[in-house]
Amino acid sequence: MPLRPRDRLGVDSSSFIAYNPHMFTTVEWKDGAVRLIDQTLLPGQVAYIDCKDVAAVAEAIESLRVRGAPAIGITAAYGIALAAQQVSAEGFDDFYTALLPSCERLAATRPTAVNLFWAINRMKALALRLREQEISAIKEGLLTEAHNILREDIAMNHAIGRFGFGLIQPGSGILTHCNAGGLATGGYGTALGVIRRAWEEYKDIQVYADETRPILQGSRLTTWELMQDQIPVTLITDNMAAYFMQQKKIQCCIVGADRIAANGDAANKIGTYGVAILAKEHGIPFYVAAPSSTIDFAIASGAEIPIEERSHSEVSHMGEKEISTKGVTIANPAFDVTPAKYIAAIITEKGCFKPENLGANRPAE
Amino acid sequence: MPLRPRDRLGVDSSSFIAYNPHMFTTVEWKDGAVRLIDQTLLPGQVAYIDCKDVAAVAEAIESLRVRGAPAIGITAAYGIALAAQQVSAEGFDDFYTALLPSCERLAATRPTAVNLFWAINRMKALALRLREQEISAIKEGLLTEAHNILREDIAMNHAIGRFGFGLIQPGSGILTHCNAGGLATGGYGTALGVIRRAWEEYKDIQVYADETRPILQGSRLTTWELMQDQIPVTLITDNMAAYFMQQKKIQCCIVGADRIAANGDAANKIGTYGVAILAKEHGIPFYVAAPSSTIDFAIASGAEIPIEERSHSEVSHMGEKEISTKGVTIANPAFDVTPAKYIAAIITEKGCFKPENLGANRPAE
Repeated sequence: MPLRPRDRLGVDSSSFIAYNPHMFTTVEWKDGAVRLIDQTLLPGQVAYIDCKDVAAVAEAIESLRVRGAPAIGITAAYGIALAAQQVSAEGFDDFYTALLPSCERLAATRPTAVNLFWAINRMKALALRLREQEISAIKEGLLTEAHNILREDIAMNHAIGRFGFGLIQPGSGILTHCNAGGLATGGYGTALGVIRRAWEEYKDIQVYADETRPILQGSRLTTWELMQDQIPVTLITDNMAAYFMQQKKIQCCIVGADRIAANGDAANKIGTYGVAILAKEHGIPFYVAAPSSTIDFAIASGAEIPIEERSHSEVSHMGEKEISTKGVTIANPAFDVTPAKYIAAIITEKGCFKPENLGANRPAE
Repeated sequence: MPLRPRDRLGVDSSSFIAYNPHMFTTVEWKDGAVRLIDQTLLPGQVAYIDCKDVAAVAEAIESLRVRGAPAIGITAAYGIALAAQQVSAEGFDDFYTALLPSCERLAATRPTAVNLFWAINRMKALALRLREQEISAIKEGLLTEAHNILREDIAMNHAIGRFGFGLIQPGSGILTHCNAGGLATGGYGTALGVIRRAWEEYKDIQVYADETRPILQGSRLTTWELMQDQIPVTLITDNMAAYFMQQKKIQCCIVGADRIAANGDAANKIGTYGVAILAKEHGIPFYVAAPSSTIDFAIASGAEIPIEERSHSEVSHMGEKEISTKGVTIANPAFDVTPAKYIAAIITEKGCFKPENLGANRPAE
C-alpha cells in the first residue's frame, strides 16, 4: 500500500486538527472509533484497525498492536473517551460508576509504562471536574481531552527534539534500542524525535538500530520509520552493539523510557540497561528522551518499578515457527531498569536534565 | 526421532573407537564418508548428512551444518582424509599436488576460527612426513590422523572440564553465549565441558543460555544439548544478560573461542565482548574455555584476527520469513574480539591460565 504524508488527524466529531509529519498515524479518533496502525503487522503490512469498544482497545494494547509508553497513554485516553460515548446514564454518579470498569480494564493491560496510568488519571480527573455539566458535555469534554493528550504529545516530542538535538554532534553514529519513534508516541517520537531533529539540522548522522529481541521493535518499526524519512539507518542484532562501539562507529546512545523514578532510574525495553553499561565502558554518553509524564515522582527509585513478564512464546517462536528447543525453560522480562548513574541526561519537553535534577519536571500541585 | 547414547564413533575402515557421551555424534567417519549431524536442522529435526567429497564438506562448513571452531577443524581433517582416498596418483609428488586444492578449498570456507588452519596444516605435515611410504599407507595414515584429531579433541574437552569446573562455585548461575558444547567439538564441549563437569560434581548449577542472534546457536543447540543431559538451563535473549546479572542470578560467564591471540585477546561469537563488559561491570568472572590449538601464537593481539562478515539475510530473515524492513542496510559481523583484560582465565587442556600466561600452551618447535 503506497503511503503519503498525512497533515491532519481525527477530524471526526471534533474540530481537532494536528500536524502529523508521518506517512502513518499511530493513534487517532476516526468515525467514533479508536483507529490504530496495527504494529504487529509492520513492516510487511500497513493496516489500520478500528477499536469500537474498550475491550478491543485493551486487547490492542496487550497484544502490542499499539506499544510505546506515550502511545499507550494516548490510546488509553481515547479508550476512555470511547467508553464514555457508550455509557447510558442520566446523572454523573451513574455515568462515572459506569465508566470506572473501563478505566480499570485499561489500567490492567500493562504494568510498567506509567504514561498509561497518567493518562487514565487525567481523564478521570477531568470527568470529576466536569461533574456539574450535562452528560453530553462531559462526553464531549473527555474526547477533547484525549485529543489534547495526543496534540500535546506531538508538541512535546518536537520540544524534546529541539532541546535534545544539540547533544548530538554532526557526523555522529547514534545507537538506539527498541522504538521510541512516531510509532511509540502520537508522532515524531522521543528518542527518534531527537534523531529526527538532528537529521533535519545536520543531514549527517548514522543511526544504528538494535533489532530488539524478542519482539523486534527495532528491526520492524525503527528501521521502517527512519527509512520513510530517509534517515540513514543500519540494522544490527542486539549483541552487536559492543562491537560497533569498539570500532568507534557509535558516538552516543539515545533511548526512550517507560517509567522514570524520581531519582532518575529509568525503565525501558529489555536490553537498555546493557546498552547503558556498554556505553559507559566505551566513554559514550547515554541519553534518555521522554515526556515529563513518564517521570513517576511517587517512586523514589527504579527498584519500585514493576517489570512485566510476557509470554514465553515471544522468545520460543517466530510467528508460527518454533525456534528453540521444545519444552525449554524461558525467561521473558519485557523491561529493565537503568540506574541513574549511567544516564548522561534525561531530555524532556522542558529541557535536558541530569538525572538528579528532574525536579523542574514535577507537575504543579 | 528417539535418541540413545552412542558409545562408539567411526568404526569403518579403522579400529578407531572413542567414547562419546552424547546421544548424537557431531562428526564421524562412516562408510567412507564424513558424517555430520546437520546443525541447521536442530532442534526440530535430528538428521545426519554424509559428505562424499570435499565440495560437500566445504559446503557443510560454510552453511553452518557443522560449526564451532574445534568441530570445524575435525571436519576439515576428515575432509582431507576423504579427498586423499579419492586421489589417483602413483608417486608422492603427484599425490600431494592433487591433494592441495582440497586443502585450499577447505581453508577458504571460514576465516576466523584458527582450528581450521591448524587441522589442515597438521594433515599436510603428516602427508609430508609419510612421503617415503606407499600411497595407500599415506591415505591410511591421513585417516588415522583425522581419527586422532577427533579422539584428542574429546580427551582435551574432558581435561578442560576437569581443570575448569573448580572455578565454578556450587549453586552458581552460569551464563554462556553461543554453543561451545559437544556440537561445537568432537564431543563433551569446551565451555559446556566445564559446565558438564560442574554439573556432574555438584548437581546444583543453573545455566543461562543467550539465544545468540542471528543464528540462534544458544536457543537451538545449547538448550538442546543441555536438556538431553538434564542440566538445568534457562533460555534468554541476548539483551537480557545484563538484567539477570543485575538480579544476581549469574555468578560467572563461560564461553568458547574461535581464535585466541598470543596476548590472550579472544575472538568468539558476536556478542561475547558485550557479555564480558557486562560481567566486569557486575564483578562477575568471565572465563574462556578452548583447546590449546585455538591459540594462535603467530599473532600478537586480537587486532590481527579477521572477522567474518556473513550474509545479511541471516539478520533480515528467519527461515523464509522476512522479519525486518525490506531493503534496510544490515551489518552482520559473525565474531568479535574480547580484549584479554576482561578475561579472568583461559581454560585449556593444559590448565587454567591468566591471559598473559598462555606460554605453557605454545606447541613444541
